Amino acid sequence: MLFHVDMTVHLPSDMPEEQAAEIKAAEKAYSQKLQHAGTWRHLWRVAGSYSNVSIFDVEDNEALHRIISGLPLFPYMEIQVRPLCRHPSSVRDDDS
Amino acid sequence: MLFHVDMTVHLPSDMPEEQAAEIKAAEKAYSQKLQHAGTWRHLWRVAGSYSNVSIFDVEDNEALHRIISGLPLFPYMEIQVRPLCRHPSSVRDDDS
Amino acid sequence: MLFHVDMTVHLPSDMPEEQAAEIKAAEKAYSQKLQHAGTWRHLWRVAGSYSNVSIFDVEDNEALHRIISGLPLFPYMEIQVRPLCRHPSSVRDDDS
Amino acid sequence: MLFHVDMTVHLPSDMPEEQAAEIKAAEKAYSQKLQHAGTWRHLWRVAGSYSNVSIFDVEDNEALHRIISGLPLFPYMEIQVRPLCRHPSSVRDDDS
Amino acid sequence: MLFHVDMTVHLPSDMPEEQAAEIKAAEKAYSQKLQHAGTWRHLWRVAGSYSNVSIFDVEDNEALHRIISGLPLFPYMEIQVRPLCRHPSSVRDDDS
Amino acid sequence: MLFHVDMTVHLPSDMPEEQAAEIKAAEKAYSQKLQHAGTWRHLWRVAGSYSNVSIFDVEDNEALHRIISGLPLFPYMEIQVRPLCRHPSSVRDDDS
Amino acid sequence: MLFHVDMTVHLPSDMPEEQAAEIKAAEKAYSQKLQHAGTWRHLWRVAGSYSNVSIFDVEDNEALHRIISGLPLFPYMEIQVRPLCRHPSSVRDDDS
Amino acid sequence: MLFHVDMTVHLPSDMPEEQAAEIKAAEKAYSQKLQHAGTWRHLWRVAGSYSNVSIFDVEDNEALHRIISGLPLFPYMEIQVRPLCRHPSSVRDDDS
Amino acid sequence: MLFHVDMTVHLPSDMPEEQAAEIKAAEKAYSQKLQHAGTWRHLWRVAGSYSNVSIFDVEDNEALHRIISGLPLFPYMEIQVRPLCRHPSSVRDDDS
Amino acid sequence: MLFHVDMTVHLPSDMPEEQAAEIKAAEKAYSQKLQHAGTWRHLWRVAGSYSNVSIFDVEDNEALHRIISGLPLFPYMEIQVRPLCRHPSSVRDDDS
Repeated sequence: MLFHVDMTVHLPSDMPEEQAAEIKAAEKAYSQKLQHAGTWRHLWRVAGSYSNVSIFDVEDNEALHRIISGLPLFPYMEIQVRPLCRHPSSVRDDDS
Repeated sequence: MLFHVDMTVHLPSDMPEEQAAEIKAAEKAYSQKLQHAGTWRHLWRVAGSYSNVSIFDVEDNEALHRIISGLPLFPYMEIQVRPLCRHPSSVRDDDS
Repeated sequence: MLFHVDMTVHLPSDMPEEQAAEIKAAEKAYSQKLQHAGTWRHLWRVAGSYSNVSIFDVEDNEALHRIISGLPLFPYMEIQVRPLCRHPSSVRDDDS
Repeated sequence: MLFHVDMTVHLPSDMPEEQAAEIKAAEKAYSQKLQHAGTWRHLWRVAGSYSNVSIFDVEDNEALHRIISGLPLFPYMEIQVRPLCRHPSSVRDDDS
Repeated sequence: MLFHVDMTVHLPSDMPEEQAAEIKAAEKAYSQKLQHAGTWRHLWRVAGSYSNVSIFDVEDNEALHRIISGLPLFPYMEIQVRPLCRHPSSVRDDDS
Repeated sequence: MLFHVDMTVHLPSDMPEEQAAEIKAAEKAYSQKLQHAGTWRHLWRVAGSYSNVSIFDVEDNEALHRIISGLPLFPYMEIQVRPLCRHPSSVRDDDS
Repeated sequence: MLFHVDMTVHLPSDMPEEQAAEIKAAEKAYSQKLQHAGTWRHLWRVAGSYSNVSIFDVEDNEALHRIISGLPLFPYMEIQVRPLCRHPSSVRDDDS
Repeated sequence: MLFHVDMTVHLPSDMPEEQAAEIKAAEKAYSQKLQHAGTWRHLWRVAGSYSNVSIFDVEDNEALHRIISGLPLFPYMEIQVRPLCRHPSSVRDDDS
Repeated sequence: MLFHVDMTVHLPSDMPEEQAAEIKAAEKAYSQKLQHAGTWRHLWRVAGSYSNVSIFDVEDNEALHRIISGLPLFPYMEIQVRPLCRHPSSVRDDDS
Repeated sequence: MLFHVDMTVHLPSDMPEEQAAEIKAAEKAYSQKLQHAGTWRHLWRVAGSYSNVSIFDVEDNEALHRIISGLPLFPYMEIQVRPLCRHPSSVRDDDS
């Protein structure tokens, strides 16, 4: 089951650089593990911003929440979730 | 080059059903041709709405505009475009 | 799997009363069938408005979209969907 | 009498973890007591966010305010209240 | 129990004047009957607009909805409802 | 002359409790004095929020500004002012 | 007593030109009479829009409402009213 | 050439009172000098808020920017600029 | 003097195609004449929308308003105007 | 390929002046280098604000993101990107 997720990062301007670097490294590892597992199916940067657009393939809402709320950057992000389903005009087998 | 496009359809409530059916059929054919060509890379329905999320792979802004403004439903849609680029944490070769 | 859905009805001011009555009757029948089936788990009117708040219990996003887009009032509603999951502080067994 | 309440938590980024844990524990106890009493009738997490959707069953507006303003997380939440009433199409006896 | 209600009227620009006059007369009669009964406790015009601010004193949400949805202008109004309660600094006995 | 005023309080999360208590006590005294004088004609709490709705009866805009900008909580409030006048359907003599 | 009023005109696209011309002529006459009387103290066009900014000098809210709601274009305008008062730094005697 | 400028002041809640007083005094002197010169043509307080509405008479956009960005309170203000021009119904010679 | 103008076209869905074509042809001629005169300095299409971004070089606000309000599409456009001036970091002689 | 970028700067009010001066100097050098290279094609200040409007001429979205995210002021700016293309009515050869 697919979900479309918009994430925008807002780090507090007084967070020490070292701490920021640590969180970002943890975020990258977390994200790549889920990408390799096929759960985090697509991940794009929105050009010109500190935002991404992601497609998650999860079992249910419970799983989606576990993954998103576990993101190391979760406390610093503005997040919007939209459930997706197959579009009647889609020709791709793997977009659902 | 990838673009993220949100489209929401607002058909006038007094449009004859036949005309609506015709436009939708033309839209479907137009969309599927572009999907087969690899230009309209992803197409999802947003569950519970008359909206879709699409990823286009085009040569440049010019091409993107030609495709979107050529959509049979173009005059009846609210459209938001965001340029995408490769995310530094992405592990997929075909997401850029 | 639960979804929270806000619906607000905007009937065109020039819709004949008879047609409006027909759509509303169909909506009521459609809704009650789904309520009896346990799919439309809760349905409340927001006091002072032509809006409702609903909780749906469906198998997946696909099923949610089929149900919402099949609503007789669907073309005349503003709809907002939010996926729900069990709250860690919840004590109710049937709220997930 | 039922009320629909949306709550989103915004903890200050410089709140000590210990203090946050204490407030959350108090919030959980407070919420569960009210759930057992039947006052806090439903409580769901909105997937992918630090938000919940709640249904309260109270005597009057006064009681609603006493409960919400007494929440340990009250100073850190964005809250939206909507009064509910029985929907004319509802088939459930306990949704009013 | 008190509720604060904002109402703004949007009559369709093609409504015949006679029909508009009829609805407004019905609205006035409806409103004055409820004012005399003490249910519609306050009614003010917002200067420079076709809007009013009202305070209703009703038994519960059900009663509030019955009254508001019964307004002759109901289909043509944008309405916002907020539940009120006694303010801890209030000195008036009849403001609750 | 009447004015409708919405006030929502946002105290900085790092304000010492003692200071907050002092400001609130001053606010209460200030408000009650004006209520007894008939200037602050109505004061309600919006249920579930740290907001109030107030009706002021003042000589002119100048007087309104003097009163509002003199509120001990003024620097910490979001405030919206709307001028009121008698509604043509009002039956109350003291609502203008 | 001064009020700041923003007005933006939205004429229905199907209003006959003759009717529009008539309303605009009536509006101009109405406005100029009030300007000569000193009631409509300032009137500016916002460059590039069908909007104006006005300053009214009236006795009270009642008078303001009578004037604005009497505008021939009133049913076709979006209007925002803000009460003004003398600024503590003002050096002009006639700006209050 | 006239410009309409809305300014709302947001002083940081932790700014020392002395520093705030100094900035405000500088702002007042700056403003009064420009008023005497005829450049800052009108200045009003919006009743009930820490906002003003101003009319500037300047040579060009360059001059407007120099004046606004030089305001002692500039870093603490939310500012909206709208170019004005003579209204075709205006009867005042000095409103353009 | 430069102005930045955003324009978005909203043609009524029931405008006859012939009339639309006529207005668009007139708009094109009008625009090109002003471009050749150096007044309409830049004109870009926003990709994927029926919007443009324009830079006008005019004598004053009066001239800007005359040009924009004379656009054949003016009654069908949403327009936002922002005055520009030379940026202190600009290296181009002709960007002011 | 052209992009339209709106940037508004929000420096934290507690940033030391020296640090702000340093960042601004770096921003200026960065910007001028890109202007000389033809990549940052236009740069204007929006009068009365700490905002600019820019036109970038880049190879693709990737290049745009590299440039914008490399801006010394990037962490302190609100940024909006819109892809541009040639307008069918444009007469300028160098606006595409």
